[in-house]
Amino acid sequence: MKVIKFGGSSLASAEQLTKVRNIVKSDATRKFVVVSAPGKREANDTKVTDALIAYYKAYKKGEDVTTTQKWIISRYQNMCDELGISGAVIVNIADEINSLAKLPIKDNKFLYDTFLAAGENNNAKLIAEYFSENGINARYIHPQDAGIIVSAEPGNARLLPSSYEKINYLNDLDETLIIPGFFGVTENGEICTFSRGGSDITGSIIAAGVRAELYENFTDVDGIFAAHPGIIKSPASITELTYREMRELAYSGFSVLHDEALLPAYRANVPLVIKNTNNPEHPGTKIVAKRTVTGSPVVGIAADGGFTALNISKYLMNREIGFGRKVLQILENLGIRFEHMPTGIDDMSIIMRDRFLNRQLEKSILDNMTESLQPDELYFEKNLSIMMIVGEDMKEHIGVTARAAHALAQAGVNIEMLSQGSSEVSIMFIVKSDQESAAITALYEEFFAK
Amino acid sequence: MKVIKFGGSSLASAEQLTKVRNIVKSDATRKFVVVSAPGKREANDTKVTDALIAYYKAYKKGEDVTTTQKWIISRYQNMCDELGISGAVIVNIADEINSLAKLPIKDNKFLYDTFLAAGENNNAKLIAEYFSENGINARYIHPQDAGIIVSAEPGNARLLPSSYEKINYLNDLDETLIIPGFFGVTENGEICTFSRGGSDITGSIIAAGVRAELYENFTDVDGIFAAHPGIIKSPASITELTYREMRELAYSGFSVLHDEALLPAYRANVPLVIKNTNNPEHPGTKIVAKRTVTGSPVVGIAADGGFTALNISKYLMNREIGFGRKVLQILENLGIRFEHMPTGIDDMSIIMRDRFLNRQLEKSILDNMTESLQPDELYFEKNLSIMMIVGEDMKEHIGVTARAAHALAQAGVNIEMLSQGSSEVSIMFIVKSDQESAAITALYEEFFAK
Repeated sequence: MKVIKFGGSSLASAEQLTKVRNIVKSDATRKFVVVSAPGKREANDTKVTDALIAYYKAYKKGEDVTTTQKWIISRYQNMCDELGISGAVIVNIADEINSLAKLPIKDNKFLYDTFLAAGENNNAKLIAEYFSENGINARYIHPQDAGIIVSAEPGNARLLPSSYEKINYLNDLDETLIIPGFFGVTENGEICTFSRGGSDITGSIIAAGVRAELYENFTDVDGIFAAHPGIIKSPASITELTYREMRELAYSGFSVLHDEALLPAYRANVPLVIKNTNNPEHPGTKIVAKRTVTGSPVVGIAADGGFTALNISKYLMNREIGFGRKVLQILENLGIRFEHMPTGIDDMSIIMRDRFLNRQLEKSILDNMTESLQPDELYFEKNLSIMMIVGEDMKEHIGVTARAAHALAQAGVNIEMLSQGSSEVSIMFIVKSDQESAAITALYEEFFAK
Repeated sequence: MKVIKFGGSSLASAEQLTKVRNIVKSDATRKFVVVSAPGKREANDTKVTDALIAYYKAYKKGEDVTTTQKWIISRYQNMCDELGISGAVIVNIADEINSLAKLPIKDNKFLYDTFLAAGENNNAKLIAEYFSENGINARYIHPQDAGIIVSAEPGNARLLPSSYEKINYLNDLDETLIIPGFFGVTENGEICTFSRGGSDITGSIIAAGVRAELYENFTDVDGIFAAHPGIIKSPASITELTYREMRELAYSGFSVLHDEALLPAYRANVPLVIKNTNNPEHPGTKIVAKRTVTGSPVVGIAADGGFTALNISKYLMNREIGFGRKVLQILENLGIRFEHMPTGIDDMSIIMRDRFLNRQLEKSILDNMTESLQPDELYFEKNLSIMMIVGEDMKEHIGVTARAAHALAQAGVNIEMLSQGSSEVSIMFIVKSDQESAAITALYEEFFAK
């Protein structure tokens, strides 16, 4: 059996829902369908989720909400009309949307999550009805009934480990199940959402729970490209990736799937495929534990800006037991996550994401380290990008580092830092952000265009 | 004024001492002469220091020590005879050597240090006498009188910071001062030796204390070679090095000067030159704060074996705040120093020197980390060598990394790990130890033989 998940752009209109129905219908093993809220129909459109946020804000302020309510209901109504779905379901949807404005505001830490979740929840109802009326034995199922019981952390729910056993019972149901993504229910019955990319998480959880043979993640691109199409024109699409490769690419800028979404499927050893609702014949990109397709040592080139280096040097640093630990302790005490820590003999750099820093924190870091470490040099280096060339087969190919470094040098890109670790799944370069595009182009030319 | 230090091989025989006298005499600014104990005259000879160790052991066991005493005294006697030095000094030397066997054994934690220091101390007396009788206004001075007051840590003495002020008074003395290297005196008047390479430390301390214009370190080679002459035939000699470059080379296998010896001169900004007693016309290698000689981006290639990597991987590792700190805390709790810590996204390696590990410690590391970090993978990788290409000018040359990596790839050397940090004074490669020679040869060919 397969779990199949559709993103918001795949569910934005009657036209899209027709494609979705055909995709589900074409394969009887597609038994578990996880759906997002309706996305944008065209560039200037409003996502249902964004409308729900506006609705929530207005309601909380005590403003009039009828216009927003109507707009949201009409979005579902339009789809029902265009798809010729009978009236009962839209009444149910309208009821749920309107009744949000009767929930208690005070001491209700799940209010925002409950508003947001209505986007997915009502779309699941609509789709279940549409499928049922069009040849699929479909059934809407609420996350509570599906067994998705989560921790009481609004906006950042985590599945309770005991949930997997309950989810596994979904295998006993005969119908094709339509499950709203993005949220679960706490042990007290409150609606609580996952973090960003939450419908992907639901799909991954269901895939792990039912022990699916495959988790199909349908979006609006033909899988994952070997490099960012904004920089490389028509980059190659990747046929197969390992979870580790995907994780390295996602880390450094590939935004297809969130880490939290990969984890449940990864742990349950369920392969995942990223496919295109608008081009379902394309095989997409498969993400697996162990790759069968091999060839080029590099499968993808990723880059992400917004990094800062804290450079520390002190003569004879490496003879001080505990120096590195003290550096990390100071960061931990300030609640700052670090990304990498390349070390020389008497110097080290701590690479951090800009978004975890601010002027105040930077000052605290400098003050604390100056006091407790007495370094010879201590300064921040800004506007850095991390570039990653990724491929499990690199370890079989002597000279990948040489090719990459040579390509960068030829393109006039200075390597600020370089780290190639024991995993050999990736080689990391740090370059100045204004050289990021040139670096990606040079590496793509080297590994894909030759 | 200059501080000039001679190593054991420069002071092993009358012939060598004649060279030393000529060197000191040829430059009136060579006012502070630091001397080692007599070294080997030829390959099968015994160093005076090793004879003193045998003497100490026999004395402590209650064995007969007269043969050893005689042998040691005869070493000095022979030099006196050959140099035609008058009798008084050898009587003094023989007294000191013999009286070691009257020192208390029980509760005397400085006994070993006192035995060892006699090698340098008596050589200084002999040399001062020889100089005085041969046209140099020389004076032997004991470290206590020179102001070298140290911590009471046998075998690992550290200069008390207040000593520098006392040492500075040496500038007020008119004579050329002959100072025994390798040891100082505690505040209670006990003899206490520095760690290995201790005479170099004394020279560096004197140079810092008297604010010398130059610290000349005389040994038996024409300065520092760009690569190990055991691997590269007749390697280039280095004209000028910065302290940072020297430190990086020393770290990874260049054994000319110990870190502790560099530090005092470095802190006081005294330049250092390494010269050859047997070829004093050769300019040697100068070690300075800022280099004036430039050209090739790489000044030296060093390698050192005996490293082990601890490889740790865990899916989503880098999202766990404090993961790296916990790893280092475990090592610190076990008293283990680490050298480097290259990180990937979900993996890190901790590079340690084999000599700080043993089977028991390795087991403790694995047990502790398994318990508190629950990694997906955790294993030791043995028989690694660290290679370093060093040069402050590398940062001006795009493509040094590419050239190095290409040269290694051409030679069939697999780069296990690679780290190029913010300092850009060095690029570090980790290779399997059985590829170390091939790697050095390839890098030397690339940067020096082209």
